[in-house]
Amino acid sequence: MPVIEGVRYATAEAGIRYKGRTDLMVAVLDPGTAAAGVLTRSKTCSAAVSWCRESLKGGNGRIVVVNSGNANTFTGQKGRDAVATTAKFASDAVKCRENEVYIASTGVIGEPMDASKFAHLLEGLATSARPDATVAAARAILTTDTYPKLATRTVKIGDVDVHINGFCKGAGMIAPDMATMLAFIFTDAAIPHHVLQPMLAAFAETTFNCMTVDGDTSTSDTCLLFATGAAAKRGQVPVADAADPRLRAFEGALHDLMRDLAIQVARDGEGVSKFVTFEVSGAEDWKAARTIARSCANSPILKTAIAGEDPNWGRVVMAVGKSGEAADRDRLAIWFGPYCVARNGERAAEYDEKTVAAYMKGREIVIRVDAGVGAGRATVWTCDLTHDYVSINADYRS
Amino acid sequence: MPVIEGVRYATAEAGIRYKGRTDLMVAVLDPGTAAAGVLTRSKTCSAAVSWCRESLKGGNGRIVVVNSGNANTFTGQKGRDAVATTAKFASDAVKCRENEVYIASTGVIGEPMDASKFAHLLEGLATSARPDATVAAARAILTTDTYPKLATRTVKIGDVDVHINGFCKGAGMIAPDMATMLAFIFTDAAIPHHVLQPMLAAFAETTFNCMTVDGDTSTSDTCLLFATGAAAKRGQVPVADAADPRLRAFEGALHDLMRDLAIQVARDGEGVSKFVTFEVSGAEDWKAARTIARSCANSPILKTAIAGEDPNWGRVVMAVGKSGEAADRDRLAIWFGPYCVARNGERAAEYDEKTVAAYMKGREIVIRVDAGVGAGRATVWTCDLTHDYVSINADYRS
Repeated sequence: MPVIEGVRYATAEAGIRYKGRTDLMVAVLDPGTAAAGVLTRSKTCSAAVSWCRESLKGGNGRIVVVNSGNANTFTGQKGRDAVATTAKFASDAVKCRENEVYIASTGVIGEPMDASKFAHLLEGLATSARPDATVAAARAILTTDTYPKLATRTVKIGDVDVHINGFCKGAGMIAPDMATMLAFIFTDAAIPHHVLQPMLAAFAETTFNCMTVDGDTSTSDTCLLFATGAAAKRGQVPVADAADPRLRAFEGALHDLMRDLAIQVARDGEGVSKFVTFEVSGAEDWKAARTIARSCANSPILKTAIAGEDPNWGRVVMAVGKSGEAADRDRLAIWFGPYCVARNGERAAEYDEKTVAAYMKGREIVIRVDAGVGAGRATVWTCDLTHDYVSINADYRS
Repeated sequence: MPVIEGVRYATAEAGIRYKGRTDLMVAVLDPGTAAAGVLTRSKTCSAAVSWCRESLKGGNGRIVVVNSGNANTFTGQKGRDAVATTAKFASDAVKCRENEVYIASTGVIGEPMDASKFAHLLEGLATSARPDATVAAARAILTTDTYPKLATRTVKIGDVDVHINGFCKGAGMIAPDMATMLAFIFTDAAIPHHVLQPMLAAFAETTFNCMTVDGDTSTSDTCLLFATGAAAKRGQVPVADAADPRLRAFEGALHDLMRDLAIQVARDGEGVSKFVTFEVSGAEDWKAARTIARSCANSPILKTAIAGEDPNWGRVVMAVGKSGEAADRDRLAIWFGPYCVARNGERAAEYDEKTVAAYMKGREIVIRVDAGVGAGRATVWTCDLTHDYVSINADYRS
């Protein structure tokens, strides 16, 4: 990972729930950093999500504090107190206003979180934070993830190279409806909040919001983007508005990086044995296509068939039908990988069960659906539903 | 089961897919039988569902033909031909109009179905049909069900006893959005189609549509109700309109029978180890309460926790939050059985993990949620998500 000028990371073992691993991450941002974010639409969102929603109104960021092991969700006044304590210690640590502090928590829901376990560590962490500790930062925020999820892109704004680094976590309770579980993206580009915010929100729709593990939208989904502006020192003329043509390459790189991170989450879905892509075309519009693709990607009976390496395309028909979106039963077509299994509303003449069953033995499955009614297209990434998913979630907390 | 005068059943081993068991059921209805029905809202509904939708416009029923082993769904023109062949042989068998024939098919989706395997049997079945073969009829329509699902009620209309018998099937791909998989209800009451139809549709909303196994709405959901009117011979004055006060007891019995059948389906959900009831109160209205209860009942991560006997009420908070319905995070309350685990947006002071964990070891779990915003109430029945569900659906077709 390249270093993003203006961002430094530090981690600690605060013992919030886990033993023998880091569970606290701090990212310190230079003064003048612009912030953007998208947050869960859950009606039972965490206290940290509510805090971030307020901070984003200011549009600036100086410090991010993330803990794993406890989501500090549904913890009432104690939860709000824990966030307030964290924010106070964090703002003291970097001498910033409290609305320049961003907080995220992930882990078990409903357990009171004792912020005094780690708030006193923040000052030392802010001092010791280093620009090259990105991977350590990505590790500290994990829960049931089996590996850290990072991505980087370099792109020019005008003639100046700018860098974008991102990392995220998430493996279960994943069906982002606004952002993903937790994702943090940093760039040294000089782009103001009012340009970043709509860009991030739009890109979340076609990246994190097109990915699902189990259809269960978390209470803590948080995706934050910080632009330190350090590239201005190397000659990048700051961007003033969204119409600036120099932004197109940056947008492409940011979207690509966000998609990369989203796919990494689906690939590490709890109990995953296969990474599955649903590509829907021929829907009424883009949103309808995504609804159909999500209906497939969240269907337990279809996901278990995929786990069983069964090319059970009848269950794709079911999932399309239950989505509620328009589909022409008699023009519907379905492909498993390169193989057309159904067209014009019935099994394809050339369908050969053995060939398609062999395809299902792969680790990466692409299922394509044409709904036969329009020009809307969307892609949704997910994983299969396995015995390991049941084991992980039947035993995770007890 | 009492006999319903005017209804006779017959079954056969047609070898449609299964060996050594019945897979074809015929119910013959006396002339003058009124019909009502609710059918799946799936956009990829089966050819048989489309047929029933047309027949219901006539409001009369003379014969019902049901096969298991093949859903005859997504089978294009071949599927429509199979239905037309079945209807022709069925109407010939009882000398009725084709729009007095009702057809339902359940089993694998997408396999062409050869109606010539069984159409020639219909005439003999219609002749040999007997009034007391209800249980045999209920057995012939099963797929992955582990037992037949029957219910009966007797109630007075005026001074005359009328009987209602019903049976249904369904274990997976169960999230009825209009009716359940397949349910057939027969009564000897003299009630016309225009009174029966809205009654059945309304009751489906609070019975079958409040039950889910996996959130996967079938392409073939069909619930049909037939009233032979034979009770008129015993002195029941026929009902003319829905306002007839003599109907109230019948409505109570019918609703109770439909709820009984719906609960039997959830109790036999694929891989079930626990029967789970979600009772939601304090929602904005009845529909909002049902949406919240369904969100809980369809959450993989919550259902696996229940399978693991983990009182993980944080996942209830998540499922309430993702439902999209109004809920007051800081007034939300949750009970597992008699134990309040959370109130006023945080863990209840008296919560004792050991006590609630012991409760989770039972076979019947009741989880109650108060959303804290209104007076809407609803109950949804489901089962847990177990290793056996994965096994059944990874291996069902291959």
